[in-house]
Amino acid sequence: MTDAPSLPVARSVAELRQIVGDWKRQGLRVGMVPTMGALHEGHLTLVREAARRTDRVLASNFVNPTQFAAHEDLGRYPRQQEEDARLLAGAGCDLMFAPTVEEMYPQGFATSIAVSGPALGLEGDARPQMFGGVALVVTKLFNQAQPDVAVFGEKDFQQLMVIRRFVRDLDLPVEIIGSPTERDEHGLALSSRNAYLSEKELATARSLNLILRKAADEAASGRPLPGVEREAYSALLKAGFDRVDYATIRHAEDLTPFRDDIVDAPARILAAAWLGKTRLIDNMAVGA
Amino acid sequence: MTDAPSLPVARSVAELRQIVGDWKRQGLRVGMVPTMGALHEGHLTLVREAARRTDRVLASNFVNPTQFAAHEDLGRYPRQQEEDARLLAGAGCDLMFAPTVEEMYPQGFATSIAVSGPALGLEGDARPQMFGGVALVVTKLFNQAQPDVAVFGEKDFQQLMVIRRFVRDLDLPVEIIGSPTERDEHGLALSSRNAYLSEKELATARSLNLILRKAADEAASGRPLPGVEREAYSALLKAGFDRVDYATIRHAEDLTPFRDDIVDAPARILAAAWLGKTRLIDNMAVGA
Repeated sequence: MTDAPSLPVARSVAELRQIVGDWKRQGLRVGMVPTMGALHEGHLTLVREAARRTDRVLASNFVNPTQFAAHEDLGRYPRQQEEDARLLAGAGCDLMFAPTVEEMYPQGFATSIAVSGPALGLEGDARPQMFGGVALVVTKLFNQAQPDVAVFGEKDFQQLMVIRRFVRDLDLPVEIIGSPTERDEHGLALSSRNAYLSEKELATARSLNLILRKAADEAASGRPLPGVEREAYSALLKAGFDRVDYATIRHAEDLTPFRDDIVDAPARILAAAWLGKTRLIDNMAVGA
Repeated sequence: MTDAPSLPVARSVAELRQIVGDWKRQGLRVGMVPTMGALHEGHLTLVREAARRTDRVLASNFVNPTQFAAHEDLGRYPRQQEEDARLLAGAGCDLMFAPTVEEMYPQGFATSIAVSGPALGLEGDARPQMFGGVALVVTKLFNQAQPDVAVFGEKDFQQLMVIRRFVRDLDLPVEIIGSPTERDEHGLALSSRNAYLSEKELATARSLNLILRKAADEAASGRPLPGVEREAYSALLKAGFDRVDYATIRHAEDLTPFRDDIVDAPARILAAAWLGKTRLIDNMAVGA
Protein backbone atom coordinates (compact mmCIF):
# COMPACT_ATOMS: atom_id res chain seq x y z
CA MET A 1 0.00 0.00 0.00
CA THR A 2 1.36 3.41 -1.00
CA ASP A 3 0.40 6.90 0.06
CA ALA A 4 -2.19 8.53 -2.21
CA PRO A 5 -0.62 11.24 -4.38
CA SER A 6 -1.15 14.78 -3.09
CA LEU A 7 -3.66 16.97 -4.91
CA PRO A 8 -3.18 20.61 -5.96
CA VAL A 9 -5.83 22.83 -4.33
CA ALA A 10 -6.94 26.19 -5.78
CA ARG A 11 -8.51 28.59 -3.25
CA SER A 12 -9.17 31.56 -5.55
CA VAL A 13 -10.83 31.95 -8.95
CA ALA A 14 -7.57 33.48 -10.25
CA GLU A 15 -5.57 30.35 -9.29
CA LEU A 16 -8.27 28.10 -10.74
CA ARG A 17 -8.31 29.98 -14.05
CA GLN A 18 -4.52 29.91 -14.31
CA ILE A 19 -4.34 26.13 -13.94
CA VAL A 20 -7.32 25.35 -16.18
CA GLY A 21 -6.12 27.96 -18.70
CA ASP A 22 -2.76 26.15 -18.90
CA TRP A 23 -4.58 22.87 -19.58
CA LYS A 24 -6.70 24.44 -22.32
CA ARG A 25 -3.69 26.07 -24.01
CA GLN A 26 -2.24 22.54 -24.21
CA GLY A 27 -5.41 21.46 -26.03
CA LEU A 28 -6.58 19.25 -23.15
CA ARG A 29 -10.29 18.64 -22.53
CA VAL A 30 -11.42 19.47 -19.01
CA GLY A 31 -14.05 17.66 -16.93
CA MET A 32 -15.60 19.02 -13.75
CA VAL A 33 -17.38 17.44 -10.78
CA PRO A 34 -19.07 20.04 -8.55
CA THR A 35 -19.40 18.76 -4.95
CA MET A 36 -20.14 20.05 -1.46
CA GLY A 37 -17.35 17.84 -0.05
CA ALA A 38 -17.93 15.03 2.50
CA LEU A 39 -17.00 12.79 -0.37
CA HIS A 40 -17.92 9.12 -0.65
CA GLU A 41 -17.74 6.43 -3.31
CA GLY A 42 -20.67 8.06 -5.17
CA HIS A 43 -18.67 11.21 -5.81
CA LEU A 44 -15.55 9.23 -6.75
CA THR A 45 -17.58 7.40 -9.40
CA LEU A 46 -18.42 10.82 -10.91
CA VAL A 47 -14.71 11.73 -10.90
CA ARG A 48 -13.81 8.46 -12.65
CA GLU A 49 -16.58 9.07 -15.21
CA ALA A 50 -15.21 12.56 -15.88
CA ALA A 51 -11.68 11.13 -16.19
CA ARG A 52 -12.91 8.57 -18.75
CA ARG A 53 -14.31 11.39 -20.90
CA THR A 54 -11.67 14.12 -20.57
CA ASP A 55 -7.92 14.70 -20.14
CA ARG A 56 -8.00 16.60 -16.84
CA VAL A 57 -10.56 16.54 -14.02
CA LEU A 58 -11.24 19.17 -11.42
CA ALA A 59 -13.62 18.79 -8.50
CA SER A 60 -15.03 21.77 -6.63
CA ASN A 61 -15.51 21.42 -2.89
CA PHE A 62 -17.78 24.16 -1.60
CA VAL A 63 -20.69 23.98 0.85
CA ASN A 64 -22.87 26.53 -0.95
CA PRO A 65 -24.84 28.67 1.51
CA THR A 66 -27.29 29.98 -1.12
CA GLN A 67 -28.89 26.54 -1.52
CA PHE A 68 -29.69 26.14 2.19
CA ALA A 69 -32.66 27.83 3.87
CA ALA A 70 -32.13 29.45 7.28
CA HIS A 71 -33.51 26.43 9.17
CA GLU A 72 -31.60 23.82 7.14
CA ASP A 73 -28.43 21.93 7.93
CA LEU A 74 -25.78 24.33 6.52
CA GLY A 75 -23.85 24.51 9.80
CA ARG A 76 -24.27 20.78 10.41
CA TYR A 77 -23.21 19.74 6.91
CA PRO A 78 -20.04 17.61 7.26
CA ARG A 79 -16.71 19.25 6.26
CA GLN A 80 -13.51 17.20 5.78
CA GLN A 81 -11.44 18.85 3.04
CA GLU A 82 -8.13 17.07 3.73
CA GLU A 83 -9.77 13.65 3.56
CA ASP A 84 -11.70 14.80 0.46
CA ALA A 85 -8.44 15.82 -1.27
CA ARG A 86 -6.91 12.42 -0.50
CA LEU A 87 -9.95 10.58 -1.90
CA LEU A 88 -10.06 12.75 -5.05
CA ALA A 89 -6.37 12.20 -5.77
CA GLY A 90 -6.89 8.44 -5.48
CA ALA A 91 -9.78 8.58 -7.97
CA GLY A 92 -7.75 10.37 -10.65
CA CYS A 93 -8.73 13.98 -9.97
CA ASP A 94 -6.13 16.59 -10.99
CA LEU A 95 -7.28 19.66 -9.05
CA MET A 96 -9.57 20.54 -6.15
CA PHE A 97 -11.18 24.00 -6.15
CA ALA A 98 -12.10 24.91 -2.58
CA PRO A 99 -12.99 28.59 -2.43
CA THR A 100 -14.09 30.53 0.66
CA VAL A 101 -17.65 31.88 0.96
CA GLU A 102 -16.16 35.38 0.64
CA GLU A 103 -14.46 34.43 -2.67
CA MET A 104 -17.77 33.14 -4.07
CA TYR A 105 -20.16 35.75 -2.63
CA PRO A 106 -18.20 38.95 -1.90
CA GLN A 107 -19.66 42.06 -0.24
CA GLY A 108 -22.20 43.69 -2.55
CA PHE A 109 -23.24 40.47 -4.29
CA ALA A 110 -26.62 41.24 -5.89
CA THR A 111 -27.54 38.53 -8.42
CA SER A 112 -29.86 35.53 -8.18
CA ILE A 113 -31.20 32.90 -10.58
CA ALA A 114 -34.64 31.28 -10.53
CA VAL A 115 -35.71 28.13 -12.38
CA SER A 116 -39.29 26.96 -12.89
CA GLY A 117 -40.28 23.95 -15.07
CA PRO A 118 -38.54 20.83 -13.69
CA ALA A 119 -37.66 22.73 -10.48
CA LEU A 120 -41.33 22.96 -9.46
CA GLY A 121 -42.71 20.44 -6.95
CA LEU A 122 -40.99 17.49 -5.20
CA GLU A 123 -37.68 18.84 -3.83
CA GLY A 124 -38.75 22.32 -4.93
CA ASP A 125 -41.70 22.11 -2.49
CA ALA A 126 -39.64 20.80 0.39
CA ARG A 127 -36.69 23.14 -0.12
CA PRO A 128 -37.78 26.29 -2.00
CA GLN A 129 -34.29 27.83 -1.77
CA MET A 130 -32.45 24.92 -3.18
CA PHE A 131 -32.65 24.91 -6.96
CA GLY A 132 -32.12 28.67 -7.30
CA GLY A 133 -29.04 28.29 -5.11
CA VAL A 134 -27.82 25.32 -7.16
CA ALA A 135 -28.36 27.24 -10.41
CA LEU A 136 -26.41 30.22 -9.05
CA VAL A 137 -23.41 28.27 -7.76
CA VAL A 138 -23.20 25.92 -10.76
CA THR A 139 -23.41 28.88 -13.18
CA LYS A 140 -20.62 30.59 -11.24
CA LEU A 141 -18.47 27.45 -11.10
CA PHE A 142 -18.89 26.83 -14.84
CA ASN A 143 -17.99 30.44 -15.67
CA GLN A 144 -15.04 30.31 -13.28
CA ALA A 145 -13.57 27.03 -14.54
CA GLN A 146 -14.99 26.82 -18.08
CA PRO A 147 -14.95 23.01 -18.24
CA ASP A 148 -15.90 21.13 -21.42
CA VAL A 149 -17.89 18.47 -19.53
CA ALA A 150 -19.47 18.26 -16.07
CA VAL A 151 -20.70 15.08 -14.37
CA PHE A 152 -23.60 14.97 -11.88
CA GLY A 153 -25.17 11.99 -10.09
CA GLU A 154 -28.62 10.62 -10.89
CA LYS A 155 -29.00 10.31 -7.09
CA ASP A 156 -30.24 13.93 -7.21
CA PHE A 157 -32.38 13.23 -10.26
CA GLN A 158 -34.54 16.35 -10.14
CA GLN A 159 -31.41 18.44 -9.65
CA LEU A 160 -29.89 16.83 -12.75
CA MET A 161 -33.01 17.75 -14.77
CA VAL A 162 -32.91 21.32 -13.38
CA ILE A 163 -29.22 21.65 -14.26
CA ARG A 164 -29.85 20.42 -17.81
CA ARG A 165 -32.63 23.04 -18.06
CA PHE A 166 -30.74 26.17 -16.93
CA VAL A 167 -27.54 25.12 -18.70
CA ARG A 168 -29.56 25.01 -21.90
CA ASP A 169 -31.51 28.18 -21.11
CA LEU A 170 -28.41 30.23 -20.25
CA ASP A 171 -26.43 28.66 -23.14
CA LEU A 172 -23.62 27.60 -20.81
CA PRO A 173 -21.12 25.85 -23.13
CA VAL A 174 -20.74 22.75 -20.94
CA GLU A 175 -21.84 19.18 -21.74
CA ILE A 176 -23.84 17.71 -18.81
CA ILE A 177 -23.42 13.99 -18.06
CA GLY A 178 -25.69 12.10 -15.63
CA SER A 179 -24.07 9.19 -13.80
CA PRO A 180 -26.04 6.28 -12.22
CA THR A 181 -26.50 6.22 -8.44
CA GLU A 182 -23.90 4.32 -6.39
CA ARG A 183 -25.42 2.00 -3.77
CA ASP A 184 -24.11 -0.02 -0.85
CA GLU A 185 -24.47 -3.83 -0.73
CA HIS A 186 -28.03 -3.37 0.57
CA GLY A 187 -28.97 -1.08 -2.29
CA LEU A 188 -28.96 2.06 -0.11
CA ALA A 189 -28.04 5.06 -2.27
CA LEU A 190 -24.77 6.57 -1.04
CA SER A 191 -25.25 10.03 0.51
CA SER A 192 -23.29 12.36 2.77
CA ARG A 193 -26.39 12.43 4.96
CA ASN A 194 -26.21 8.66 5.64
CA ALA A 195 -23.47 9.57 8.13
CA TYR A 196 -26.15 11.05 10.41
CA LEU A 197 -28.06 7.75 10.75
CA SER A 198 -28.09 5.52 13.85
CA GLU A 199 -27.81 1.72 13.39
CA LYS A 200 -31.58 1.37 13.72
CA GLU A 201 -32.25 4.18 11.24
CA LEU A 202 -29.76 2.63 8.81
CA ALA A 203 -31.80 -0.59 8.74
CA THR A 204 -34.91 1.40 7.82
CA ALA A 205 -32.98 3.45 5.26
CA ARG A 206 -31.99 0.25 3.47
CA SER A 207 -35.66 -0.58 2.83
CA LEU A 208 -36.14 2.59 0.73
CA ASN A 209 -34.64 1.21 -2.48
CA LEU A 210 -36.52 -2.10 -2.11
CA ILE A 211 -39.88 -0.39 -1.68
CA LEU A 212 -39.22 1.85 -4.70
CA ARG A 213 -38.09 -1.10 -6.83
CA LYS A 214 -41.27 -3.04 -6.00
CA ALA A 215 -43.50 -0.03 -6.81
CA ALA A 216 -41.58 0.64 -10.03
CA ASP A 217 -42.02 -2.96 -11.15
CA GLU A 218 -45.75 -2.85 -10.46
CA ALA A 219 -46.13 0.43 -12.34
CA ALA A 220 -44.14 -1.04 -15.24
CA SER A 221 -46.52 -4.00 -15.35
CA GLY A 222 -49.47 -1.62 -15.92
CA ARG A 223 -50.97 -1.23 -12.45
CA PRO A 224 -52.68 2.19 -12.01
CA LEU A 225 -50.36 4.71 -10.38
CA PRO A 226 -52.53 6.04 -7.50
CA GLY A 227 -52.67 2.58 -5.90
CA VAL A 228 -48.97 1.93 -6.48
CA GLU A 229 -48.00 5.28 -4.96
CA ARG A 230 -50.31 4.89 -1.95
CA GLU A 231 -48.87 1.46 -1.24
CA ALA A 232 -45.28 2.69 -1.48
CA TYR A 233 -46.12 5.55 0.88
CA SER A 234 -47.61 3.15 3.47
CA ALA A 235 -44.74 0.70 3.11
CA LEU A 236 -42.22 3.46 3.86
CA LEU A 237 -44.03 4.43 7.06
CA LYS A 238 -44.38 0.79 8.06
CA ALA A 239 -40.65 0.23 7.48
CA GLY A 240 -39.91 2.90 10.07
CA PHE A 241 -39.67 6.22 8.22
CA ASP A 242 -41.06 9.02 10.39
CA ARG A 243 -42.52 11.04 7.52
CA VAL A 244 -42.79 10.73 3.74
CA ASP A 245 -42.59 13.93 1.67
CA TYR A 246 -43.39 12.15 -1.59
CA ALA A 247 -43.29 8.77 -3.31
CA THR A 248 -44.35 9.36 -6.89
CA ILE A 249 -43.95 8.15 -10.46
CA ARG A 250 -43.33 10.86 -13.08
CA HIS A 251 -42.35 11.33 -16.69
CA ALA A 252 -38.59 10.76 -16.77
CA GLU A 253 -37.74 13.87 -18.77
CA ASP A 254 -39.66 16.77 -17.25
CA LEU A 255 -41.00 15.15 -14.05
CA THR A 256 -44.63 15.96 -14.91
CA PRO A 257 -47.30 13.50 -13.64
CA PHE A 258 -48.89 10.87 -15.91
CA ARG A 259 -52.34 12.20 -16.80
CA ASP A 260 -53.93 8.79 -17.38
CA ASP A 261 -52.54 7.20 -14.19
CA ILE A 262 -50.75 4.52 -16.24
CA VAL A 263 -47.08 4.45 -17.25
CA ASP A 264 -47.09 4.73 -21.05
CA ALA A 265 -43.77 6.56 -21.56
CA PRO A 266 -40.29 6.60 -19.95
CA ALA A 267 -40.86 7.04 -16.21
CA ARG A 268 -38.98 7.55 -12.98
CA ILE A 269 -40.03 6.79 -9.41
CA LEU A 270 -38.83 9.35 -6.88
CA ALA A 271 -39.18 9.51 -3.10
CA ALA A 272 -38.14 11.61 -0.12
CA ALA A 273 -38.61 10.43 3.47
CA TRP A 274 -37.43 11.37 6.94
CA LEU A 275 -35.62 9.41 9.64
CA GLY A 276 -35.52 11.67 12.69
CA LYS A 277 -33.91 14.91 11.49
CA THR A 278 -32.37 13.29 8.42
CA ARG A 279 -34.10 13.49 5.05
CA LEU A 280 -33.23 10.81 2.50
CA ILE A 281 -34.05 10.81 -1.22
CA ASP A 282 -33.83 8.09 -3.84
CA ASN A 283 -35.09 7.43 -7.37
CA MET A 284 -34.85 4.84 -10.12
CA ALA A 285 -36.02 4.18 -13.66
CA VAL A 286 -39.40 2.47 -14.02
CA GLY A 287 -39.26 -0.63 -16.20
CA ALA A 288 -35.52 -0.50 -16.83
CA MET B 1 -18.33 56.93 -52.77
CA THR B 2 -18.33 53.12 -52.73
CA ASP B 3 -20.91 50.59 -51.57
CA ALA B 4 -20.48 49.50 -47.97
CA PRO B 5 -19.08 45.96 -47.71
CA SER B 6 -21.68 43.27 -47.01
CA LEU B 7 -21.78 41.78 -43.52
CA PRO B 8 -22.05 38.08 -42.61
CA VAL B 9 -25.19 37.45 -40.51
CA ALA B 10 -25.56 34.48 -38.12
CA ARG B 11 -29.16 33.53 -37.31
CA SER B 12 -28.49 30.53 -35.02
CA VAL B 13 -26.26 29.98 -32.00
CA ALA B 14 -24.59 27.10 -33.87
CA GLU B 15 -23.59 29.41 -36.77
CA LEU B 16 -22.43 32.07 -34.32
CA ARG B 17 -20.26 29.61 -32.39
CA GLN B 18 -18.72 28.22 -35.55
CA ILE B 19 -17.59 31.64 -36.77
CA VAL B 20 -16.39 32.91 -33.38
CA GLY B 21 -14.75 29.52 -32.70
CA ASP B 22 -12.76 29.87 -35.94
CA TRP B 23 -11.59 33.32 -34.86
CA LYS B 24 -10.53 32.03 -31.44
CA ARG B 25 -8.64 29.08 -32.90
CA GLN B 26 -6.66 31.65 -34.90
CA GLY B 27 -5.78 33.35 -31.62
CA LEU B 28 -7.85 36.46 -32.41
CA ARG B 29 -9.41 38.52 -29.62
CA VAL B 30 -13.16 39.03 -30.00
CA GLY B 31 -15.18 42.12 -29.07
CA MET B 32 -18.97 42.22 -28.81
CA VAL B 33 -21.56 45.00 -28.95
CA PRO B 34 -25.02 43.83 -27.85
CA THR B 35 -27.77 45.95 -29.45
CA MET B 36 -31.51 45.90 -30.05
CA GLY B 37 -30.97 47.19 -33.59
CA ALA B 38 -32.33 50.53 -34.88
CA LEU B 39 -28.71 51.53 -34.95
CA HIS B 40 -27.45 55.11 -34.90
CA GLU B 41 -24.10 56.82 -34.53
CA GLY B 42 -24.09 55.99 -30.78
CA HIS B 43 -24.00 52.25 -31.50
CA LEU B 44 -21.40 52.68 -34.24
CA THR B 45 -19.13 54.43 -31.74
CA LEU B 46 -19.36 51.30 -29.57
CA VAL B 47 -18.44 49.13 -32.56
CA ARG B 48 -15.42 51.33 -33.32
CA GLU B 49 -14.38 51.18 -29.65
CA ALA B 50 -14.61 47.36 -29.73
CA ALA B 51 -12.62 47.29 -32.99
CA ARG B 52 -9.87 49.42 -31.39
CA ARG B 53 -9.54 46.89 -28.55
CA THR B 54 -9.93 43.54 -30.35
CA ASP B 55 -9.23 41.75 -33.65
CA ARG B 56 -12.81 40.86 -34.58
CA VAL B 57 -16.10 42.54 -33.64
CA LEU B 58 -19.55 41.05 -33.57
CA ALA B 59 -22.76 42.95 -32.88
CA SER B 60 -25.95 41.24 -31.79
CA ASN B 61 -29.21 42.63 -33.12
CA PHE B 62 -32.11 41.30 -31.06
CA VAL B 63 -35.15 43.10 -29.67
CA ASN B 64 -35.28 41.20 -26.39
CA PRO B 65 -38.87 40.58 -25.25
CA THR B 66 -37.90 39.68 -21.66
CA GLN B 67 -36.85 43.26 -20.92
CA PHE B 68 -40.16 44.81 -21.97
CA ALA B 69 -43.24 44.78 -19.73
CA ALA B 70 -46.61 43.95 -21.32
CA HIS B 71 -47.61 47.61 -21.66
CA GLU B 72 -44.25 48.76 -23.05
CA ASP B 73 -43.15 49.49 -26.60
CA LEU B 74 -41.90 46.02 -27.70
CA GLY B 75 -44.15 45.92 -30.78
CA ARG B 76 -43.46 49.56 -31.55
CA TYR B 77 -39.68 49.29 -31.15
CA PRO B 78 -38.11 50.12 -34.55
CA ARG B 79 -36.72 47.20 -36.62
CA GLN B 80 -34.45 47.75 -39.65
CA GLN B 81 -32.00 44.85 -39.85
CA GLU B 82 -30.80 45.41 -43.43
CA GLU B 83 -29.99 49.03 -42.74
CA ASP B 84 -28.36 47.98 -39.44
CA ALA B 85 -26.12 45.45 -41.24
CA ARG B 86 -25.02 48.13 -43.71
CA LEU B 87 -24.18 50.56 -40.90
CA LEU B 88 -22.30 47.90 -38.91
CA ALA B 89 -20.20 46.86 -41.92
CA GLY B 90 -19.25 50.49 -42.48
CA ALA B 91 -18.14 50.85 -38.84
CA GLY B 92 -15.79 47.86 -38.99
CA CYS B 93 -18.04 45.13 -37.62
CA ASP B 94 -17.24 41.58 -38.79
CA LEU B 95 -20.44 39.71 -37.93
CA MET B 96 -24.04 40.47 -37.02
CA PHE B 97 -25.86 37.94 -34.81
CA ALA B 98 -29.61 38.32 -35.37
CA PRO B 99 -31.41 35.35 -33.78
CA THR B 100 -35.16 34.77 -33.73
CA VAL B 101 -37.12 34.92 -30.48
CA GLU B 102 -37.63 31.16 -30.80
CA GLU B 103 -33.85 30.59 -31.03
CA MET B 104 -33.28 32.63 -27.86
CA TYR B 105 -36.30 31.49 -25.81
CA PRO B 106 -37.44 28.08 -27.06
CA GLN B 107 -40.51 26.20 -25.79
CA GLY B 108 -39.97 25.11 -22.17
CA PHE B 109 -37.63 27.98 -21.29
CA ALA B 110 -37.68 28.16 -17.48
CA THR B 111 -34.81 30.34 -16.21
CA SER B 112 -34.72 33.94 -15.01
CA ILE B 113 -32.12 36.23 -13.43
CA ALA B 114 -32.74 38.95 -10.85
CA VAL B 115 -30.35 41.74 -9.86
CA SER B 116 -30.68 43.99 -6.79
CA GLY B 117 -28.04 46.55 -5.69
CA PRO B 118 -27.48 49.03 -8.56
CA ALA B 119 -30.66 47.77 -10.28
CA LEU B 120 -32.87 49.15 -7.49
CA GLY B 121 -34.58 52.51 -8.00
CA LEU B 122 -34.43 54.97 -10.96
CA GLU B 123 -34.97 52.86 -14.11
CA GLY B 124 -35.68 49.86 -11.87
CA ASP B 125 -38.72 51.71 -10.44
CA ALA B 126 -40.03 52.81 -13.80
CA ARG B 127 -39.44 49.51 -15.58
CA PRO B 128 -39.36 46.61 -13.07
CA GLN B 129 -38.94 44.01 -15.82
CA MET B 130 -36.02 45.60 -17.49
CA PHE B 131 -32.82 44.80 -15.64
CA GLY B 132 -33.71 41.15 -15.07
CA GLY B 133 -34.42 40.87 -18.79
CA VAL B 134 -31.15 42.61 -19.65
CA ALA B 135 -29.22 40.31 -17.29
CA LEU B 136 -30.83 37.24 -18.87
CA VAL B 137 -30.21 38.19 -22.49
CA VAL B 138 -26.68 39.51 -21.91
CA THR B 139 -25.75 36.35 -19.96
CA LYS B 140 -27.11 34.25 -22.83
CA LEU B 141 -25.34 36.33 -25.49
CA PHE B 142 -22.02 36.14 -23.63
CA ASN B 143 -22.32 32.37 -23.19
CA GLN B 144 -23.33 31.97 -26.84
CA ALA B 145 -20.54 34.08 -28.33
CA GLN B 146 -17.89 33.94 -25.57
CA PRO B 147 -16.35 37.32 -26.45
CA ASP B 148 -13.23 38.60 -24.67
CA VAL B 149 -14.56 42.17 -24.40
CA ALA B 150 -18.00 43.78 -24.61
CA VAL B 151 -18.72 47.49 -25.05
CA PHE B 152 -21.81 49.25 -23.66
CA GLY B 153 -22.80 52.92 -23.80
CA GLU B 154 -22.78 55.23 -20.77
CA LYS B 155 -26.07 56.54 -22.18
CA ASP B 156 -27.73 53.74 -20.21
CA PHE B 157 -25.56 54.42 -17.19
CA GLN B 158 -27.54 52.44 -14.63
CA GLN B 159 -27.69 49.53 -17.07
CA LEU B 160 -23.89 49.68 -17.40
CA MET B 161 -23.54 49.52 -13.58
CA VAL B 162 -26.02 46.60 -13.44
CA ILE B 163 -24.14 44.75 -16.17
CA ARG B 164 -20.83 45.23 -14.35
CA ARG B 165 -22.52 43.85 -11.22
CA PHE B 166 -24.01 40.61 -12.61
CA VAL B 167 -21.01 39.94 -14.85
CA ARG B 168 -18.86 40.04 -11.72
CA ASP B 169 -21.38 38.07 -9.61
CA LEU B 170 -21.82 35.30 -12.20
CA ASP B 171 -18.07 35.29 -13.01
CA LEU B 172 -18.74 35.77 -16.71
CA PRO B 173 -15.25 35.87 -18.28
CA VAL B 174 -15.88 39.04 -20.31
CA GLU B 175 -14.24 42.47 -19.85
CA ILE B 176 -16.91 45.21 -19.77
CA ILE B 177 -16.04 48.59 -21.33
CA GLY B 178 -18.23 51.69 -20.88
CA SER B 179 -18.17 54.16 -23.78
CA PRO B 180 -19.14 57.87 -23.45
CA THR B 181 -22.54 59.00 -24.72
CA GLU B 182 -22.72 60.24 -28.33
CA ARG B 183 -24.65 63.51 -28.70
CA ASP B 184 -25.98 65.55 -31.62
CA GLU B 185 -24.80 69.12 -32.26
CA HIS B 186 -27.30 70.33 -29.64
CA GLY B 187 -25.99 67.95 -27.01
CA LEU B 188 -29.04 65.63 -27.25
CA ALA B 189 -27.98 62.07 -26.39
CA LEU B 190 -28.48 59.81 -29.42
CA SER B 191 -31.25 57.24 -28.86
CA SER B 192 -33.41 54.97 -31.00
CA ARG B 193 -36.38 56.57 -29.26
CA ASN B 194 -35.52 60.05 -30.62
CA ALA B 195 -37.08 58.83 -33.88
CA TYR B 196 -40.49 59.01 -32.20
CA LEU B 197 -40.21 62.78 -31.49
CA SER B 198 -42.06 65.54 -33.35
CA GLU B 199 -40.18 68.73 -34.29
CA LYS B 200 -41.61 70.52 -31.28
CA GLU B 201 -40.74 67.62 -28.93
CA LEU B 202 -37.22 67.55 -30.37
CA ALA B 203 -36.67 71.17 -29.36
CA THR B 204 -37.67 70.30 -25.77
CA ALA B 205 -35.56 67.13 -25.82
CA ARG B 206 -32.50 69.22 -26.63
CA SER B 207 -32.89 71.16 -23.37
CA LEU B 208 -32.40 68.00 -21.29
CA ASN B 209 -28.61 67.91 -21.49
CA LEU B 210 -28.33 71.67 -20.83
CA ILE B 211 -30.49 71.47 -17.69
CA LEU B 212 -28.49 68.49 -16.39
CA ARG B 213 -25.16 70.21 -17.12
CA LYS B 214 -26.24 73.30 -15.18
CA ALA B 215 -27.42 71.23 -12.21
CA ALA B 216 -24.24 69.14 -12.27
CA ASP B 217 -22.08 72.27 -12.24
CA GLU B 218 -24.01 73.72 -9.30
CA ALA B 219 -23.72 70.45 -7.37
CA ALA B 220 -19.99 70.32 -8.14
CA SER B 221 -19.61 73.84 -6.73
CA GLY B 222 -20.99 72.64 -3.38
CA ARG B 223 -24.64 73.68 -3.52
CA PRO B 224 -26.88 71.35 -1.43
CA LEU B 225 -28.44 68.63 -3.57
CA PRO B 226 -32.15 68.92 -2.64
CA GLY B 227 -32.31 72.47 -4.04
CA VAL B 228 -30.30 71.56 -7.15
CA GLU B 229 -32.51 68.56 -7.88
CA ARG B 230 -35.76 70.47 -7.29
CA GLU B 231 -34.61 73.21 -9.67
CA ALA B 232 -33.65 70.72 -12.38
CA TYR B 233 -37.02 69.03 -12.02
CA SER B 234 -38.89 72.34 -12.43
CA ALA B 235 -36.68 73.41 -15.33
CA LEU B 236 -37.50 70.19 -17.22
CA LEU B 237 -41.25 70.75 -16.84
CA LYS B 238 -40.88 74.42 -17.83
CA ALA B 239 -38.88 73.37 -20.93
CA GLY B 240 -41.89 71.33 -22.07
CA PHE B 241 -41.42 67.81 -20.69
CA ASP B 242 -44.80 66.33 -19.79
CA ARG B 243 -43.57 64.37 -16.78
CA VAL B 244 -40.28 63.83 -14.94
CA ASP B 245 -39.60 60.38 -13.43
CA TYR B 246 -36.40 61.50 -11.71
CA ALA B 247 -33.63 64.10 -11.85
CA THR B 248 -31.11 63.10 -9.22
CA ILE B 249 -27.44 63.18 -8.29
CA ARG B 250 -25.97 59.90 -7.00
CA HIS B 251 -22.67 58.23 -6.16
CA ALA B 252 -21.14 57.35 -9.50
CA GLU B 253 -20.24 53.76 -8.61
CA ASP B 254 -23.30 52.22 -6.96
CA LEU B 255 -25.92 54.94 -7.60
CA THR B 256 -26.72 55.34 -3.88
CA PRO B 257 -27.81 58.84 -2.72
CA PHE B 258 -25.42 61.24 -0.95
CA ARG B 259 -26.33 61.10 2.72
CA ASP B 260 -25.09 64.60 3.57
CA ASP B 261 -26.78 66.28 0.58
CA ILE B 262 -23.42 67.53 -0.69
CA VAL B 263 -21.26 66.00 -3.43
CA ASP B 264 -18.10 64.84 -1.67
CA ALA B 265 -17.19 61.85 -3.88
CA PRO B 266 -17.42 60.94 -7.60
CA ALA B 267 -21.01 61.66 -8.65
CA ARG B 268 -23.36 61.29 -11.59
CA ILE B 269 -26.51 63.24 -12.45
CA LEU B 270 -29.24 61.08 -14.01
CA ALA B 271 -32.68 61.98 -15.34
CA ALA B 272 -35.68 60.41 -17.06
CA ALA B 273 -38.50 62.50 -18.51
CA TRP B 274 -41.46 62.06 -20.86
CA LEU B 275 -42.43 63.80 -24.07
CA GLY B 276 -45.86 62.48 -24.97
CA LYS B 277 -45.49 58.68 -25.06
CA THR B 278 -41.70 58.83 -25.43
CA ARG B 279 -39.46 58.48 -22.40
CA LEU B 280 -35.97 59.96 -22.65
CA ILE B 281 -33.04 59.37 -20.29
CA ASP B 282 -29.69 61.11 -19.97
CA ASN B 283 -26.84 61.32 -17.48
CA MET B 284 -23.43 62.90 -17.08
CA ALA B 285 -20.52 63.07 -14.66
CA VAL B 286 -20.74 65.76 -11.97
CA GLY B 287 -17.66 67.98 -11.85
CA ALA B 288 -15.86 66.30 -14.73
